[in-house]
Amino acid sequence: MTVMRDDARRERWERAGEWPLTVAALVFLLAYSWPILDPGLARTWVTVTDVLSWVAWAMFAVDYLVRLLLSTHRARFVRRNVLDLAVVLLPLLRPLRLLRLITLLGVLNRRAGGSLRGRVSVYVAGSALAVMFVASLAVLDAERGAEGANITSFGDALWWAATTVTTVGYGDTYPVTTQGRFVAAGLMLAGIALIGVVTATLASWLVDQVREIEDTSRTATEADVDGLRAEIAELRAAVERIADAGDVSGR
Amino acid sequence: MTVMRDDARRERWERAGEWPLTVAALVFLLAYSWPILDPGLARTWVTVTDVLSWVAWAMFAVDYLVRLLLSTHRARFVRRNVLDLAVVLLPLLRPLRLLRLITLLGVLNRRAGGSLRGRVSVYVAGSALAVMFVASLAVLDAERGAEGANITSFGDALWWAATTVTTVGYGDTYPVTTQGRFVAAGLMLAGIALIGVVTATLASWLVDQVREIEDTSRTATEADVDGLRAEIAELRAAVERIADAGDVSGR
Amino acid sequence: MTVMRDDARRERWERAGEWPLTVAALVFLLAYSWPILDPGLARTWVTVTDVLSWVAWAMFAVDYLVRLLLSTHRARFVRRNVLDLAVVLLPLLRPLRLLRLITLLGVLNRRAGGSLRGRVSVYVAGSALAVMFVASLAVLDAERGAEGANITSFGDALWWAATTVTTVGYGDTYPVTTQGRFVAAGLMLAGIALIGVVTATLASWLVDQVREIEDTSRTATEADVDGLRAEIAELRAAVERIADAGDVSGR
Amino acid sequence: MTVMRDDARRERWERAGEWPLTVAALVFLLAYSWPILDPGLARTWVTVTDVLSWVAWAMFAVDYLVRLLLSTHRARFVRRNVLDLAVVLLPLLRPLRLLRLITLLGVLNRRAGGSLRGRVSVYVAGSALAVMFVASLAVLDAERGAEGANITSFGDALWWAATTVTTVGYGDTYPVTTQGRFVAAGLMLAGIALIGVVTATLASWLVDQVREIEDTSRTATEADVDGLRAEIAELRAAVERIADAGDVSGR
Repeated sequence: MTVMRDDARRERWERAGEWPLTVAALVFLLAYSWPILDPGLARTWVTVTDVLSWVAWAMFAVDYLVRLLLSTHRARFVRRNVLDLAVVLLPLLRPLRLLRLITLLGVLNRRAGGSLRGRVSVYVAGSALAVMFVASLAVLDAERGAEGANITSFGDALWWAATTVTTVGYGDTYPVTTQGRFVAAGLMLAGIALIGVVTATLASWLVDQVREIEDTSRTATEADVDGLRAEIAELRAAVERIADAGDVSGR
Repeated sequence: MTVMRDDARRERWERAGEWPLTVAALVFLLAYSWPILDPGLARTWVTVTDVLSWVAWAMFAVDYLVRLLLSTHRARFVRRNVLDLAVVLLPLLRPLRLLRLITLLGVLNRRAGGSLRGRVSVYVAGSALAVMFVASLAVLDAERGAEGANITSFGDALWWAATTVTTVGYGDTYPVTTQGRFVAAGLMLAGIALIGVVTATLASWLVDQVREIEDTSRTATEADVDGLRAEIAELRAAVERIADAGDVSGR
Repeated sequence: MTVMRDDARRERWERAGEWPLTVAALVFLLAYSWPILDPGLARTWVTVTDVLSWVAWAMFAVDYLVRLLLSTHRARFVRRNVLDLAVVLLPLLRPLRLLRLITLLGVLNRRAGGSLRGRVSVYVAGSALAVMFVASLAVLDAERGAEGANITSFGDALWWAATTVTTVGYGDTYPVTTQGRFVAAGLMLAGIALIGVVTATLASWLVDQVREIEDTSRTATEADVDGLRAEIAELRAAVERIADAGDVSGR
Repeated sequence: MTVMRDDARRERWERAGEWPLTVAALVFLLAYSWPILDPGLARTWVTVTDVLSWVAWAMFAVDYLVRLLLSTHRARFVRRNVLDLAVVLLPLLRPLRLLRLITLLGVLNRRAGGSLRGRVSVYVAGSALAVMFVASLAVLDAERGAEGANITSFGDALWWAATTVTTVGYGDTYPVTTQGRFVAAGLMLAGIALIGVVTATLASWLVDQVREIEDTSRTATEADVDGLRAEIAELRAAVERIADAGDVSGR
């Protein structure tokens, strides 16, 4: 019982923290993207974005710690939330904090309503755009100063992200730094997932359409069998009425 | 009731306008592609194509306005037809007017008949070719004059479209202008959709084939259950005949 | 009836011609590939391969003509066999004659037996290899003499085919001639089909596996319903026996 | 019976040899990767890795021979284990010995438990990483000394493997030697399989989700029909009780 109350407290915290963390992700987005998009940013503003970035980090760190403390099985909590820990500890994985913004997609989706396939499509389109945007920022951050780099403006970075996520890969723009290549590898995985989800959604739709059209003889449903059962129950009542009558007549 | 009559009037307009708009799209196709395909076109003819282009634009604009005026819920109409508005207002999206030509594919398909998968294949092949053609024109229009461009003839543009839509992307031809890159991004999306539809059609076909072959025991259909119900009804009639006879014999 | 006898005669011809045409395709393969693979071939042997090539062409042409003459509805025959006619008339499509060799794959498959998915896999692997081989020959034939070409040996051509069919497209080798680009476009389509078939086969297998494992409650089959019907028939017999007895007892 | 005992002996050997061979594969991994990763390795250590490599080879060779000798149908054994023989005889296919390490993935999976789709995902992610690692080593081994090579460090090789397996193929790094191109062809096939498995897993999941949500009317299961049968059996008992009573009354 203590276990359950403890885990319930953690879940309450997580529900309460959903929106503050989304705000923290938005703050981080601003603090992360501004200096990258405007390389000639005044010294003061760079300091401001640095401070905002640390504030966002602190919020993620505090959230992780509180959740860890509220957990009963702490070892299991750490094992199951490795990504959350990595996002807090490794500066390289900072951009992943923006994944929190998927919460916003969820809200958008709830307002739009619609079928499962529709919701999957909204998530995929939204995530693909978000991932492309973040990857463009990250790769530009890594490449800009590098020697021999061919991604030197945000336009180039977006174009590179488009050629990468669709797996076209012309080769006119590509990362040359190790950090940029890690970003690229992540984006390629996103691209494969994107192609997979598009194909899977289409396949699922087509399978359903074909089934609907070609199935002229529908399979028997529970309702049909329930109808049968009702008929048999009535029949049994009729038989029992005879039995009673027979008892009377045979007495 | 007023609402319904109004929307009925809009729908009548849309049905009546289907073919004129397809003709407008064809006129636009001519006016758009001719100066691009023949860069040394005489001054007079350039003027002619300009005029034709404006005529086609006017038809699309008038169509949009009439449909807007005939709608009862105008705000909703605008919201649901954002693409139609964008195609009229934004010169960059002009080529999308050619999407109207898909109507022709629909006619072709109706004449060919065939299964759902067959129709999907015709649409996909037709759309892929049309999109490749339009993208080639658009990219050539954007790239021809640009510095350092490597797409300078219609043959190059078609070849570039083929390498892009199949996501091969050798990188011997690629757009260098912002406008050309937007065209490319659209074509890449078309490519992913193409791969998705091809895969999905094949998967749907294969799933059906495997099911057909391996399903030796067919599931019970409604017809089977209806047969059962008829048998039970006859049985009940027989029982009731006894009950009547019992009443008689017991009297 | 005349119609049927005529079409039957054409079908008999087609069945009888299957193997001779496969041999013609093999002869053509030899005559086509030898001068391409060995550019320094002696004058005499070039003449020999030319003659062999014409012999193979004649066999395909005669086959087409006889099938046309044996058809009752000739216009329909032409319409339905456009590819066969094109392969005979257009020198550019010559390599497509080698598609006849798929007959050999069919034989291989019949000897191997196995499930539908297994047979699909054999066809796909075989066709992919055959198409890559033919495309390599065709592209090498087109590119070898061209200015600025980067595919100049059969090894390069095979490597180019591998990067194209898998849609990787590094861009170190790519066709520069119009003819070579047409070959490439065909190979890219084959690549998309290849990815599609691989994915579809895996998806079909996975869907089946998941269904098999998760379906603990099997749906009612016709056999179950037939069992029910038999029970009800016995019940009816019992009721009728009572009815008869009732008649007796009530008499 | 002798046949069965012999095959049983071979199977016992295979089960007993599973772990020693995995160890041999690990030893080979060390002996294979060390000199490639550290080109300036001291003479002594190169000799040590050579010896280890031969030891691993000997273990694979002995295993193959013993399995061959323990087989009753030796011709069939050879035919069915062509890959095992090739891995022993052809130095070029040496890296395939590392496929033995998939045994480790199996163990990992058994400890993780989970659904079929989960297990497939673990295998795919594990195999993809392993294949990328081995392909990087093999391509670096082939390319390092070659003239005009652009893959000259292990970082480059890993980056090349990532662009290849995802079919992005920028073209900044690609093999130029024949041996490297064979490695690349294998990796491309792995890439197509990877995309296929990802798509198939997503499609299978989506098909299931849609089916679950949209199936409000569940099909009749065997259990439903069994329930019906029980009701009819009771009904028959009632009818027979009447029949007995009728016999009594009619006596």
